[in-house]
Amino acid sequence: MIIVMGNEITDAQIGTVVKKIEAAGLKANISRGIERTVIGAIGDERKLEAEMFTSLPGVESAMHIAKQYKIVSRESHKQNTIVDIGGVPLGGNQIQIIAGPCSVETQEQMDLAAQFTHEAGCRLMRGGAFKPRTSPYAFQGRGAEGLAMFRKAAAKFKLPIVTELMDARQLDAFMEYDVDAIQIGTRNMQNFDLLKAVGKVNKPVILKRGMSATISEWLMSAEYIAAGGNHNIIFCERGIRTFETAYRNVLDVTAIAVLKKETHLPVIVDPSHAGGKAWMVPALSHAAIAAGADGLLVEMHPSPCDAWCDADQALTPAELKKLMGTAGAIAQAIGRTL
Amino acid sequence: MIIVMGNEITDAQIGTVVKKIEAAGLKANISRGIERTVIGAIGDERKLEAEMFTSLPGVESAMHIAKQYKIVSRESHKQNTIVDIGGVPLGGNQIQIIAGPCSVETQEQMDLAAQFTHEAGCRLMRGGAFKPRTSPYAFQGRGAEGLAMFRKAAAKFKLPIVTELMDARQLDAFMEYDVDAIQIGTRNMQNFDLLKAVGKVNKPVILKRGMSATISEWLMSAEYIAAGGNHNIIFCERGIRTFETAYRNVLDVTAIAVLKKETHLPVIVDPSHAGGKAWMVPALSHAAIAAGADGLLVEMHPSPCDAWCDADQALTPAELKKLMGTAGAIAQAIGRTL
Amino acid sequence: MIIVMGNEITDAQIGTVVKKIEAAGLKANISRGIERTVIGAIGDERKLEAEMFTSLPGVESAMHIAKQYKIVSRESHKQNTIVDIGGVPLGGNQIQIIAGPCSVETQEQMDLAAQFTHEAGCRLMRGGAFKPRTSPYAFQGRGAEGLAMFRKAAAKFKLPIVTELMDARQLDAFMEYDVDAIQIGTRNMQNFDLLKAVGKVNKPVILKRGMSATISEWLMSAEYIAAGGNHNIIFCERGIRTFETAYRNVLDVTAIAVLKKETHLPVIVDPSHAGGKAWMVPALSHAAIAAGADGLLVEMHPSPCDAWCDADQALTPAELKKLMGTAGAIAQAIGRTL
Amino acid sequence: MIIVMGNEITDAQIGTVVKKIEAAGLKANISRGIERTVIGAIGDERKLEAEMFTSLPGVESAMHIAKQYKIVSRESHKQNTIVDIGGVPLGGNQIQIIAGPCSVETQEQMDLAAQFTHEAGCRLMRGGAFKPRTSPYAFQGRGAEGLAMFRKAAAKFKLPIVTELMDARQLDAFMEYDVDAIQIGTRNMQNFDLLKAVGKVNKPVILKRGMSATISEWLMSAEYIAAGGNHNIIFCERGIRTFETAYRNVLDVTAIAVLKKETHLPVIVDPSHAGGKAWMVPALSHAAIAAGADGLLVEMHPSPCDAWCDADQALTPAELKKLMGTAGAIAQAIGRTL
Repeated sequence: MIIVMGNEITDAQIGTVVKKIEAAGLKANISRGIERTVIGAIGDERKLEAEMFTSLPGVESAMHIAKQYKIVSRESHKQNTIVDIGGVPLGGNQIQIIAGPCSVETQEQMDLAAQFTHEAGCRLMRGGAFKPRTSPYAFQGRGAEGLAMFRKAAAKFKLPIVTELMDARQLDAFMEYDVDAIQIGTRNMQNFDLLKAVGKVNKPVILKRGMSATISEWLMSAEYIAAGGNHNIIFCERGIRTFETAYRNVLDVTAIAVLKKETHLPVIVDPSHAGGKAWMVPALSHAAIAAGADGLLVEMHPSPCDAWCDADQALTPAELKKLMGTAGAIAQAIGRTL
Repeated sequence: MIIVMGNEITDAQIGTVVKKIEAAGLKANISRGIERTVIGAIGDERKLEAEMFTSLPGVESAMHIAKQYKIVSRESHKQNTIVDIGGVPLGGNQIQIIAGPCSVETQEQMDLAAQFTHEAGCRLMRGGAFKPRTSPYAFQGRGAEGLAMFRKAAAKFKLPIVTELMDARQLDAFMEYDVDAIQIGTRNMQNFDLLKAVGKVNKPVILKRGMSATISEWLMSAEYIAAGGNHNIIFCERGIRTFETAYRNVLDVTAIAVLKKETHLPVIVDPSHAGGKAWMVPALSHAAIAAGADGLLVEMHPSPCDAWCDADQALTPAELKKLMGTAGAIAQAIGRTL
Repeated sequence: MIIVMGNEITDAQIGTVVKKIEAAGLKANISRGIERTVIGAIGDERKLEAEMFTSLPGVESAMHIAKQYKIVSRESHKQNTIVDIGGVPLGGNQIQIIAGPCSVETQEQMDLAAQFTHEAGCRLMRGGAFKPRTSPYAFQGRGAEGLAMFRKAAAKFKLPIVTELMDARQLDAFMEYDVDAIQIGTRNMQNFDLLKAVGKVNKPVILKRGMSATISEWLMSAEYIAAGGNHNIIFCERGIRTFETAYRNVLDVTAIAVLKKETHLPVIVDPSHAGGKAWMVPALSHAAIAAGADGLLVEMHPSPCDAWCDADQALTPAELKKLMGTAGAIAQAIGRTL
Repeated sequence: MIIVMGNEITDAQIGTVVKKIEAAGLKANISRGIERTVIGAIGDERKLEAEMFTSLPGVESAMHIAKQYKIVSRESHKQNTIVDIGGVPLGGNQIQIIAGPCSVETQEQMDLAAQFTHEAGCRLMRGGAFKPRTSPYAFQGRGAEGLAMFRKAAAKFKLPIVTELMDARQLDAFMEYDVDAIQIGTRNMQNFDLLKAVGKVNKPVILKRGMSATISEWLMSAEYIAAGGNHNIIFCERGIRTFETAYRNVLDVTAIAVLKKETHLPVIVDPSHAGGKAWMVPALSHAAIAAGADGLLVEMHPSPCDAWCDADQALTPAELKKLMGTAGAIAQAIGRTL
């Protein structure tokens, strides 16, 4: 940690900072410049917090120089981690497209969706049974009953299933229906009790980025899960909130490159929620794969116009098939497979 | 709801839109312009969602024109609502300053904090027992034990207590220690299961704004609580996330004026988390009161430099006392009392 | 234009709105709903502004439904426009990579840069003579002298040149050195007098997006140039400002897809300023091309570590060559050429 | 400047950094920690730029620790600067309200506006002759002719005049009509050639904050003016762009407190452009004054509904008078006068 002090400080003020560093078991290195004095705290920085110093007289700022995340960092684990979702590897050279409807509606809809997902060549299926909706008056999902329909439909094509967990009290149902990968939604990225709960479970977790979460906060949320013992974590970029109103979110492709550098864990992209319109999905999917994403989480509905929610962002089965074609060609262009 | 259609549409496309409106029990009003055709859906809009139409061919956009929130709206309830927190009225002409430490540390610290809160003239006390921390390795709060210390300290001065709930599973402890007002933190503003849980409880809820939540989303989150039966809701603006890095958040004073217009419920401000530095708290507090806030949620610690978290944003007892003086003068300038 | 009125309005208030619409030569369509009354203004909307109505009693909101941009819109011109830059076509099936240093430093540096640009297979060259710098104490560019060096170096390889114009008073020098395409920088996207100036010039204009400009504002800025008579405009996405601090800007790939839909003009991407680091450039370049960009504006320096500005974002000549390879493969994957 | 290096660096890499620091005439202080090595550059930091180091192998990040602005900083000049605008002091204990219409329309309108401004007790007048408009088809201002009308109307009440300069080529007209304070608009905050131009003029400059400019960039833009010799600079906060769509901009009151700490120059606020609606102006004005602003720039129109632009954000003369009353009371509450 580095502590920067102003240009009119006393020896006593420097002494207070040094004492606080030493009390935490670290050593202090003092460097007096012309306009500022800089004190470096040498040792395990994680014992210190910036606020311990910025409240002291004479201190202008304090900042960590080492990363605050550990288990999820590439510094601690150089090789790419491949996460196994019900037998399908995510994070290796092969790119995975996880497709399916926004929400589970009926058994028939799920049966059709599973068939189309399989026919398009996708090896994993998505679908929401518990739905986070902005309005309390909107359709809230089919709940545990929806998990049953999803499991039944996917089983026919041996597709592992991915679905969102909104509250720790729903975990039992997730275990009962043997959900293959648990998705933590954007609104729950910093629901720390929920992160702790999935940290103790033996299932891969897909952690979506918060609407306006920094890369660093996102990595720390993953560290919450990892610290509980569950290291099977997949990051999912789904667009961030900005000033732009022409589309729902801004897909942050830079985040893909930065995450691949900072962490050994897989990174996927949700192009459907990012843009919010089906017609944008191909361009965003292409960009995500070209930028290095390990997979996509795409909405496809047997009949988008009749979807119970997010009808305007689901691909048709034919559009999904076409996307698989171009996505495969781009994967090849950068030396990967689909 | 208004549905805007492009300039090269067919009668069949218009027909599809009209049929969908009528199927939901509303009537359609078609207005053909030169460059666009506009279809108005007349009736109860809450049965419609924009995505039902934007996925149809020829449709450019669709938008609600009526508010999506109902119980919390001023349209539905013209008079200001005064929420009673353990006997103290919030939302009337008298402004309330809720003061206390960021987190419960020890019984001694809470005893001192309660005394200073009372001596400064504050009638409500705050303190965190369950703490949402970015890092899993940081102090996570004293938990239920902290609630006990808080209750004991506050009881001596008859101060009703306000504290944060992070997970529905902690509600029993909140009831056991008879917490007077439940705070929902910024990271949980759209934790819908938690909102549903406090919607069924007979306690006032202080709902903090999400880091990048729009006013409309915030009102909808309050509507979640209200829809469950609990109408004792207080909005708390605590700064929003922007591009600016010189301070932690940007206190959004415009939100105060807009909320007072949109809802009948009280609006308070947390100047401590907004700026993130104690020296900014007086200016932000003055601004909040001048802009029309019904109260403040302020961090004060008996000895800020020794605080276990957020040490740099807590006021000293003397600073709190001074703030009460100026805040009172500003309240008077705009015709209110403190 | 649509004018939405509240639920407690009088006939007189409706009458005032209608009169204002008719005074501008349009017709009014009144649609009375249960909670709101909607008035549509039928005719040429560009004669109206929302503020003409939102200041009237009873009016809640007013919004345009037709696009405010005309010449640059795809509605007015269905086919893709191909802009000719010194003989090189931009906006067709072939993708163009415009490479070169951030700033003109010396004749030797420019000679080398031109050679490497040519050798990598690029057909256009970039370089800044007038530099917008945050600090008045930083290197401000070589000015007109720099234009001379740039022209001389590029001539040897017949590379058309692209360089930034910061002030209308520099236009004479741009004409003297026959700059092939004029770049308007991000900080000047809404420098309307500058836009008017380049609107009267017979040279292609590369219009960078403002740091936090919406797509709509960006299109309107292009419309300023077009309205002056110059229709040879190229949009350049260069990353937007958000809350994220891990990289300089967030490259907005969604903007590419949206612009290609809204306008017939070419869209290119500057991956160097977007990420701000050379190591991010390949991933961002791949993403941009995959998303449908018509070209890239990339920084390359003969010796990045010695660059006078933005040293950390320039590619080496070898890195540029490698980028051309992968970019070509991705172009092919989506049916284009490089 | 501090340069942070990774944990697997060589002595040679450290040597390269040290040599670069010494080549610029500064000294290096090396501090080897467990996970990182930190090198401090001791001496005049303004000679260094972060990019000089971040492009070197082994370097993770580099950051200035001294402020990059000098003349405008409070470090260089402890006392508050009082700027004289045509005889009226701005920046002292007395708060100034600069009122007037958005744009100059007619002589009659300006005569009335001047009278109402004077009658409300304001000592300075605003009005736009050159107007920055998003659309090329919107009213662009009356230009030089408008300056003449403005000067004539204000002269009758001896009101010094404030108006916006959009392009250096308009400066002659500004001198001819002896404009008392030159406003640089939000879209031109980083129009560096314009800043240089007003830096050489002997007139106070009101520098509006860019739509998404950081405090640091804003101070650097002021430094551009100051470096040219003109130290009579006034900062004007006018709301920043965020994700929120319920109002035009978010008034950033925190910026007032931070600027008053960082610079000795006056800080004023434009509550009209911040909120974008007349009904928000009182609340925002109150907040600005309570937070410590030295003045306000407020839109008032003799007849808002007939205004040629921004009709919905102008106060009526009666509303301005009322605002002056409350603003005066708040000023008194914090020990100032109006």
